[in-house]
Amino acid sequence: MMNRYEDKNFKDSMRIKYDFNNLMDTVINEQVKDKADKKKTGAISRADIEAMMDKYNAARKSMEAKIGKAEFEMAWSNLAYNQDEIVEDIIEYSKKVQKKFDNFVVLGIGGSALGPIAIQQALNHMKYNDLPKKERKGPKFFVEDNVDPERMQALLDVIDIRKTCFNVISKSGGTSETMSQYLIVSDLLKKALGCKWNNNIVATTDHSKGNLIKIAQKENIKTFYIPDGVGGRFSEICPVGLLPAAVCGIDIKEMLAGVAYMDEISKEKDVFKNPAHMAGLLMYIAMEKKSKNIQVVMPYADSLKYMADWHAQLWAESLGKKYSLDGKAVNVGQTPVKALGVTDQHSQVQLYAEGPFDKVITFIGVGNYRMEYAIPNGCEDIPDVAFLGGHTLNELIQSELDATEYALTVQGKLNQRITLPEVNAFTIGQLMYFFMMQTAVAGELLNINAFNQPGVEEGKNATYALLGKKGFEEKKAELNARPEKDKEYIL
Amino acid sequence: MMNRYEDKNFKDSMRIKYDFNNLMDTVINEQVKDKADKKKTGAISRADIEAMMDKYNAARKSMEAKIGKAEFEMAWSNLAYNQDEIVEDIIEYSKKVQKKFDNFVVLGIGGSALGPIAIQQALNHMKYNDLPKKERKGPKFFVEDNVDPERMQALLDVIDIRKTCFNVISKSGGTSETMSQYLIVSDLLKKALGCKWNNNIVATTDHSKGNLIKIAQKENIKTFYIPDGVGGRFSEICPVGLLPAAVCGIDIKEMLAGVAYMDEISKEKDVFKNPAHMAGLLMYIAMEKKSKNIQVVMPYADSLKYMADWHAQLWAESLGKKYSLDGKAVNVGQTPVKALGVTDQHSQVQLYAEGPFDKVITFIGVGNYRMEYAIPNGCEDIPDVAFLGGHTLNELIQSELDATEYALTVQGKLNQRITLPEVNAFTIGQLMYFFMMQTAVAGELLNINAFNQPGVEEGKNATYALLGKKGFEEKKAELNARPEKDKEYIL
Repeated sequence: MMNRYEDKNFKDSMRIKYDFNNLMDTVINEQVKDKADKKKTGAISRADIEAMMDKYNAARKSMEAKIGKAEFEMAWSNLAYNQDEIVEDIIEYSKKVQKKFDNFVVLGIGGSALGPIAIQQALNHMKYNDLPKKERKGPKFFVEDNVDPERMQALLDVIDIRKTCFNVISKSGGTSETMSQYLIVSDLLKKALGCKWNNNIVATTDHSKGNLIKIAQKENIKTFYIPDGVGGRFSEICPVGLLPAAVCGIDIKEMLAGVAYMDEISKEKDVFKNPAHMAGLLMYIAMEKKSKNIQVVMPYADSLKYMADWHAQLWAESLGKKYSLDGKAVNVGQTPVKALGVTDQHSQVQLYAEGPFDKVITFIGVGNYRMEYAIPNGCEDIPDVAFLGGHTLNELIQSELDATEYALTVQGKLNQRITLPEVNAFTIGQLMYFFMMQTAVAGELLNINAFNQPGVEEGKNATYALLGKKGFEEKKAELNARPEKDKEYIL
Repeated sequence: MMNRYEDKNFKDSMRIKYDFNNLMDTVINEQVKDKADKKKTGAISRADIEAMMDKYNAARKSMEAKIGKAEFEMAWSNLAYNQDEIVEDIIEYSKKVQKKFDNFVVLGIGGSALGPIAIQQALNHMKYNDLPKKERKGPKFFVEDNVDPERMQALLDVIDIRKTCFNVISKSGGTSETMSQYLIVSDLLKKALGCKWNNNIVATTDHSKGNLIKIAQKENIKTFYIPDGVGGRFSEICPVGLLPAAVCGIDIKEMLAGVAYMDEISKEKDVFKNPAHMAGLLMYIAMEKKSKNIQVVMPYADSLKYMADWHAQLWAESLGKKYSLDGKAVNVGQTPVKALGVTDQHSQVQLYAEGPFDKVITFIGVGNYRMEYAIPNGCEDIPDVAFLGGHTLNELIQSELDATEYALTVQGKLNQRITLPEVNAFTIGQLMYFFMMQTAVAGELLNINAFNQPGVEEGKNATYALLGKKGFEEKKAELNARPEKDKEYIL
């Protein structure tokens, strides 16, 4: 039988849409209610786009020379095509985990955590862990991405470690947070299970470099590999994300088919037919030419809530850079803000509507939710409540998205909308790859390296120094030489 | 026996601290590593503060004339003192709920949801719902603050509504999201329980105005009241927040004692001894004089994670305003960003360290976590991992906060730190009131009304129009007259 993701009709019907009407001056100016606001909107004109074409074409050419290549950290663009064997191995291993374990715990941080969380929330039951075992496709699922002692203990209070599989994820094995957790968990497992403790661990790491692969080999731990040239925030579509997803019963082949589909679309030469490239170009214009230093990502679906978190890392860490590729201090980057529709209409939208003209709001909408929920009639004597009866929650949430989009537009606040025809593995694969490609394009236009993170080194080294790690004595001295805090400024 | 929160020594030992050294130019300039950055930091000078004193004193005087008064929506400042009877009623009712029900579900949105979520996360076991019943102080706890059909169904899949108490929270009873949920839930309860269905509902609403009080009276539903002059985002310390907290076994008297303690501190005339006022003044300077249009709130404790969400509403909705009190279009407001230490060091800190000089980072630290977790020795042959052994997670998270603070400071990025000696009901009461008072002071300095939300009306009305509510025919016509979307801008 053909899988649905091999059917062109299915794929085309599930193509995600990128609508940027409400970034454009022609659209915005027609709708802004307060004439004085028209000068403040920073809406983008057709001429703004056209003026960028040479720069865009150069950036595109430059990117095409790097894409797919591990030495430029762009091997992620091949992942839809070169993982057939790995995927089979993951699926086979996942079946064993499903049979044997009650819990699956990811020990990872950053990209190793945000991707798995986002996928689980998007594609499984929203109260997955609360379902009875027989209604779940896999074990209970936890992601421990912090080193708060209270949280570590809280997790151990509610799981039986003997029935738990821990997935340690770190490319280098030098991530202090994850390796601290590994030390804690391996110690507990050894005490509880003796020499068979390593059956309860699976490592996802580099195939040859770093500490975790050494540990895994020595301790005979099952291992999946993070390919060369795939950084943490681009790793969701490699074993980092695929293993946790498969363990929880998600169709990772369909997800990768979605990635491939968006990759094909992203090869389109005409930027007006290439949504990811256009989105990268428009956000470049918004941040560099229109002073929009904030981007709000606001899905109207609880299932997509943590996609905003995953996107926030991708966008912030890739584009937030001090130096351009030619060594100039540029201090670029757009600050991502996570919001959730309709919830944050009651929290953030007042600011978005009436506050400064400093942001772009990116709505993520859903064509069809996976179920319909009717609002029954009632309170007939109270018109403010009664009018809701007979509608569905679906109509309510869809209307609120349309209404909020309208309310921001008439206030001259730039916004755009991405629509998933439905939330499924195919559209989620597309969406993630859309964001990855958009980020790469924006990075190229900014003339920065979107794939490193030099700015976190200082903090890492200072942590090592404070914990007395060997080799960081000089940094320790530097920290000790910090000026005393002025007590007058501590209230 | 005296409660600990009646003991002056306890209270003074639990006073939260506000440290703004790293906003000040003297401190920042001494530490910035790249000389060229010194001109970009936007650090605040002593002269900047002194230049504001007349304005601050005028704002303070203006605020003092309004504070405590319901007609100015500032009755929240009395809540530490005038709720003795209500608190007893809440505690008594909570005991009944604890005995009778397996689940307690808040139906509310905005302030009605964010406060209860933040308090539960801060003061109860971090996997509270996963604990066996006998280890919990109350029923399982859920907050349903969205109208996503998939989420509504997911909740109903995992609770037995006959054993569930639903707390409907809406001051007006005109909140479409909450009232839709009420229609759904009351319909299900009637079908399951017949005429006794109203035992499973408790309403928190206005004592006389609005729809929900009418419904509650007609249906004979137990009711708690939201006092006059207490808006949604200031309602956590009234029954809106106190009831869910008490049901889950939180000491609400201690929390209110913390509120009272911070209220006393906030009466200090000298702004250099008044942390909430100073924090309001400094953020005013940061946003209006130093172009810091973003504030990141980054607690280093999972227990405080949702305090950042609660704060985000308070800050965004209160200060994000188009018009000043004298009718000028000002479009003010600072965009709040939620982050979590150490987790978001691997997601956002690259941007904060190297990106634009456009934000203030507010760290929230904890003096003593409620437990210690040791990292065992191991991996002795791998120095990068072995050095962690013998330390505690406590040392690790504390060092990472110090290190991140340092790393941002040497990059010239403004930051400040609030420290809770411990996370408990007393310090949480203080912290929330600190933020409320800071917001009121900043609003007064901005010369705006911090207590309304006119900017959400447009979206509400458009939703009514789209759903065909009577009286919104004109708005419907307006929406229908929107220009067609340009298909060229949909990819």
